[in-house]
Amino acid sequence: MATLSIPQPVPSPAEDAELLRKAFVGWGTDENTIISILAHRSAAQRCLIRQHYAQVYGEDLLKSLDKEISGDFERAVLLWTLDPAERDALLLNEAARKWHHSNNVIVEIACTRSSEELFAIRRAYHARYKRSLEEDVAAYTSGDFRKLLVPLSSAYRYEGAEVNMTLAKLEAKILHGKIAEKAYSHEEIIRILTTRSKAQVLATLNHYNNEFGNPINKDLKSDPKDEFLFTLRAVTRCMSTPEKYFEKVIRLAINKIGTDEGALTRVVTTRAEVDLKVIKEIYYKRNSVPLSRAISKDTSGDYEAMLLALVGRDDA
Amino acid sequence: MATLSIPQPVPSPAEDAELLRKAFVGWGTDENTIISILAHRSAAQRCLIRQHYAQVYGEDLLKSLDKEISGDFERAVLLWTLDPAERDALLLNEAARKWHHSNNVIVEIACTRSSEELFAIRRAYHARYKRSLEEDVAAYTSGDFRKLLVPLSSAYRYEGAEVNMTLAKLEAKILHGKIAEKAYSHEEIIRILTTRSKAQVLATLNHYNNEFGNPINKDLKSDPKDEFLFTLRAVTRCMSTPEKYFEKVIRLAINKIGTDEGALTRVVTTRAEVDLKVIKEIYYKRNSVPLSRAISKDTSGDYEAMLLALVGRDDA
Repeated sequence: MATLSIPQPVPSPAEDAELLRKAFVGWGTDENTIISILAHRSAAQRCLIRQHYAQVYGEDLLKSLDKEISGDFERAVLLWTLDPAERDALLLNEAARKWHHSNNVIVEIACTRSSEELFAIRRAYHARYKRSLEEDVAAYTSGDFRKLLVPLSSAYRYEGAEVNMTLAKLEAKILHGKIAEKAYSHEEIIRILTTRSKAQVLATLNHYNNEFGNPINKDLKSDPKDEFLFTLRAVTRCMSTPEKYFEKVIRLAINKIGTDEGALTRVVTTRAEVDLKVIKEIYYKRNSVPLSRAISKDTSGDYEAMLLALVGRDDA
Repeated sequence: MATLSIPQPVPSPAEDAELLRKAFVGWGTDENTIISILAHRSAAQRCLIRQHYAQVYGEDLLKSLDKEISGDFERAVLLWTLDPAERDALLLNEAARKWHHSNNVIVEIACTRSSEELFAIRRAYHARYKRSLEEDVAAYTSGDFRKLLVPLSSAYRYEGAEVNMTLAKLEAKILHGKIAEKAYSHEEIIRILTTRSKAQVLATLNHYNNEFGNPINKDLKSDPKDEFLFTLRAVTRCMSTPEKYFEKVIRLAINKIGTDEGALTRVVTTRAEVDLKVIKEIYYKRNSVPLSRAISKDTSGDYEAMLLALVGRDDA
């Protein structure tokens, strides 16, 4: 359910690398070529192009891009061109270093990637930053947020579909009890949400809804201004309905006065090869405007062209 | 610095599997053959023997062993024959389920294995138990111990040799301040010990010793009966002087009235292929008795023979 479209037959990495090089060396830069190649290749293909480019031209493709383009367009092209694990490592590093309650990137990445993907990100983090992900998350956050974000970003959840219903009932009751006491950062809430498999957490949240009459996120909204509750709600939404979560991030980014390009670029580049097609469908249902049209309205130039190449123009 | 000795040339996995099968099917069991083969093959070779045995005889070698042998001998042979990551997963599962303050197995495995090894253990844990390691550690422990053991067992520490001395000084001061306040389970102590690279933790502990006049473990002994302090000391010892830590585990296991076969078997089987040679040297220096002789004195029969085959008889 990706939106990525790849031409058939796909040119060789050597041809792609050569065309990209030509797009850089001439008078000015040929942005159309950059988009028409990179925005229509899979992660594995982009990786081969980067390898080939470095071998033949003695420079990392990302470095050449960095010299040639700038602004939101550059950010979108660089994020997209990176290997997905490297890209998430970069996003997490930025989110940790500039950490703020309102920034849910750590939650988003920790809770919407698979266990193996999250581990690949931790490995890429070592290679790039010479530190561990959890080390930075722990160093830059504090208090209740640290208690939640460190185990979330160190998790290696079991991914089987098996569910223990007795346990789900027991833990739904624990969650309800602690929420009723307003003990939102209680270690049992954190333990349940950060260590159980996603299938088990979903069973627990379903039982919570059935047994106590409210979805947990309604009960986690007792104080709409509480920033820790905002983060907890993001955790349960990223685990239970990730596509709806991403639709909302895009919607808020577009509806914001001035557009939140950071969030828009992040969601488009990280989901184009995963589930952006579903996110687009949800966006259309929720907003009665196709996502591509909304993006066109809010962005311009090469940045607009890059996003639309990733999102696809075919939505009606 | 392993003690494992492997014959040259080594027989093929097919030959080994056949001889093992013969050792099982005859009248009684030929324990000498089991020892002479399995105790003298590397982890990779044992894995091939298991694969070959399963293919030809339609049964897992471990299951056949389980039917034929028993007691401490069985435990030693089974633990040894397992793949190292599977073996650690099994030890951790037992330690979590029967968790008790006095049992340092979780600390020992989390702090003496490399980051990649610890991750391989977490993967093996998924496969074998259909749950995650941190899920079980969190579910079976509580209070301060949980606060420490969950991040320890989820860690993926950076493994480079780079050390930030400014940070080491800063964090030595934090550790000293919290220890002086007797805030032993303070989140900053836990953050420093569970997220920093081993090289960084060592630099911090060295600076602590230089700056404050005591090794940290001396300051962590203010109340010798405090079980959490006992666990914290194990963390720093496993990270800074793992071979000395293991020597002490063996020494206490042997000196105990009745011998602690569980601990003795665990250390011998988990270290024979890693650093048991160094541990033996330290043991001899500390006790003036070669480890093989101490083991002979305290154990008997096939169990003794298995341990001695792994430890090596050549120490004087």
